Amino acid sequence: MSGFVTPGLEVAVVGATGLVGTEMLAILAERRFPVHSLRLFASPRSEGRVLTWGGADLTVEVLRPGCFDGVDLVLMEVESDISREWAPVAARAGAVVVDNSSAWRMDDTVPLVVSEVNPHALDDHAGIVANPNCTTMVLMPALKPLDAAFGLERLVVSSYQAVSGSGVAGIRALAEEEAKFGDDLDALRRSGSAGIGAAQDVYPRPIAHNAIPQCDAFVDDGTDETKEERKLVAESRKILELPDLRVAATCVRVPVVSGHSMTVNAEFREPVTAAAAAEVLAAAPGVVLAETRESYATAFEVAGRDGSFVSRLRDDESSPNTVDFFVVGDNLRKGAALNCVQLAEVLVERGKLTLH
Amino acid sequence: MSGFVTPGLEVAVVGATGLVGTEMLAILAERRFPVHSLRLFASPRSEGRVLTWGGADLTVEVLRPGCFDGVDLVLMEVESDISREWAPVAARAGAVVVDNSSAWRMDDTVPLVVSEVNPHALDDHAGIVANPNCTTMVLMPALKPLDAAFGLERLVVSSYQAVSGSGVAGIRALAEEEAKFGDDLDALRRSGSAGIGAAQDVYPRPIAHNAIPQCDAFVDDGTDETKEERKLVAESRKILELPDLRVAATCVRVPVVSGHSMTVNAEFREPVTAAAAAEVLAAAPGVVLAETRESYATAFEVAGRDGSFVSRLRDDESSPNTVDFFVVGDNLRKGAALNCVQLAEVLVERGKLTLH
Repeated sequence: MSGFVTPGLEVAVVGATGLVGTEMLAILAERRFPVHSLRLFASPRSEGRVLTWGGADLTVEVLRPGCFDGVDLVLMEVESDISREWAPVAARAGAVVVDNSSAWRMDDTVPLVVSEVNPHALDDHAGIVANPNCTTMVLMPALKPLDAAFGLERLVVSSYQAVSGSGVAGIRALAEEEAKFGDDLDALRRSGSAGIGAAQDVYPRPIAHNAIPQCDAFVDDGTDETKEERKLVAESRKILELPDLRVAATCVRVPVVSGHSMTVNAEFREPVTAAAAAEVLAAAPGVVLAETRESYATAFEVAGRDGSFVSRLRDDESSPNTVDFFVVGDNLRKGAALNCVQLAEVLVERGKLTLH
Repeated sequence: MSGFVTPGLEVAVVGATGLVGTEMLAILAERRFPVHSLRLFASPRSEGRVLTWGGADLTVEVLRPGCFDGVDLVLMEVESDISREWAPVAARAGAVVVDNSSAWRMDDTVPLVVSEVNPHALDDHAGIVANPNCTTMVLMPALKPLDAAFGLERLVVSSYQAVSGSGVAGIRALAEEEAKFGDDLDALRRSGSAGIGAAQDVYPRPIAHNAIPQCDAFVDDGTDETKEERKLVAESRKILELPDLRVAATCVRVPVVSGHSMTVNAEFREPVTAAAAAEVLAAAPGVVLAETRESYATAFEVAGRDGSFVSRLRDDESSPNTVDFFVVGDNLRKGAALNCVQLAEVLVERGKLTLH
């Protein structure tokens, strides 16, 4: 059976050979997205590679002038500087770009959208739509309905972020470091990770058997935040449409392959109990709430699954109108590829992309 | 050179063959603790094993009536139920017991002490002294001087706890699960940890490539806290002598061999800045403060080292009088064995144990 349909869209995936790009292609097929034609782009290193999608062999191309002519939808998963250069090219060629880099997220003319949270923002796009950072993304489907019900005032968030957030290079760094230990229990007992050293240049410390309180680089404005922490704060405010939301965020990389977890302490304007919050979350789109305190989801269970999985929801006795919870989501699925495809679906639903 | 000296103490280590017991023996030697004689106890499984300490071969014994006769100091590293039975036996025999289980920590007649934080509490002991939980321990040396300077009001703490906190079994579970992956990058890419399954019964979920929001069992009082979270709250209040301290804690197990890390959001009564807090922490005993934002310590660097390593100290813009920081310590050293030996040293210094 072919994955190509009429009526459908002329679709391009840029960064098609990476971790998120691979996931995008899988999700387009899984969800039977109306693809009429598909073009794949990647860096020159991958030029000429042949990938199979929807029963057809497709040759990977490189970006060049005119490459987006006739394309309706571009799913773009590239570094920010590449996106800054090529997303406007695609938009000028008449395509809608759903971009997963950080290049456009805080641009006032670019909607930053989580499909279940603020789909209406897509109506104002001017050719480019931004997909949030994978950490922010996991959190938003849980916070939006809680904000609507109780009025969100402040967040204290700590993350447990997977290495796949750094692409294949992150997974490879972890695998190489772990392989050095093998199953030498004595070496592990003696030294923890000491003496092993970091594989490659992906992380500023070894990641195997470690927790690194730095995701992405530090910002350059005199504060001691990292860019990842800054993104979590700024993107949450934009997506939730709460420009004054107070957020304390600490982002930590852990030796998890896929699945970003967070502990969340959320303070509200209105009185809230864990029971009332549970009622809201049980009905929230994109949220899967654990039924018992023991049935929490972890990165292990959510790999390859859609949704933000909330658990450990409890009254915070240290502060009024406050609850604590744990949330985890597959950073490659909802955190990246899935939401990109969902945004494209919403664009179709809302008449912003027309099948032909 | 013999490690045995006169004048010294008749010392017993109970649980001498475990992870923390092994560390206790190493630390007694490293710090040239005044050991006149040393007796080693463990479970029947280890009876008759011969360990070398201070140039002598020592045979591991099992606990039996009269076994503590003539002993001055017992360092006890056993399960709570064993401690509940045997610590009073040792105390009645005239020994001072430094106990690392949770059996006695919240007993009003038992001092719960971090050597740099509340050594004066040792003066009131009645034969048993309690060593705090390894997570609490790492946090206290940083919080005590901050409380003294600014008046601690509230904490939001999230932990990143190492498997060695569960003893050799925890390390073995992690090693076995990781060995199943080997360096199969494709398997890692495909599935994260999915399909691997948990090794043994140590943790309620696989620990390799995972973050488990449950340390220890859940409490049985209708709240959804774990015992580890409850310990962190109750022990912090007792050690800091702040019975009304407000604490929101979420304890998470991560695939780290040794080194418990925490993110800490600390709110004070008095105005505080990161700069003022840094000045206090730079002078605090038992605290090592990172000099730059990039020079943070991680579990990797602190394995086998003493002290609580503080970094990422910054002003919290989401709340007045609040700072955020990251702290990590070796849970087997300061978190357990080191503080036990330090408490014994303080008992000697304060005349509560007399060399002979």
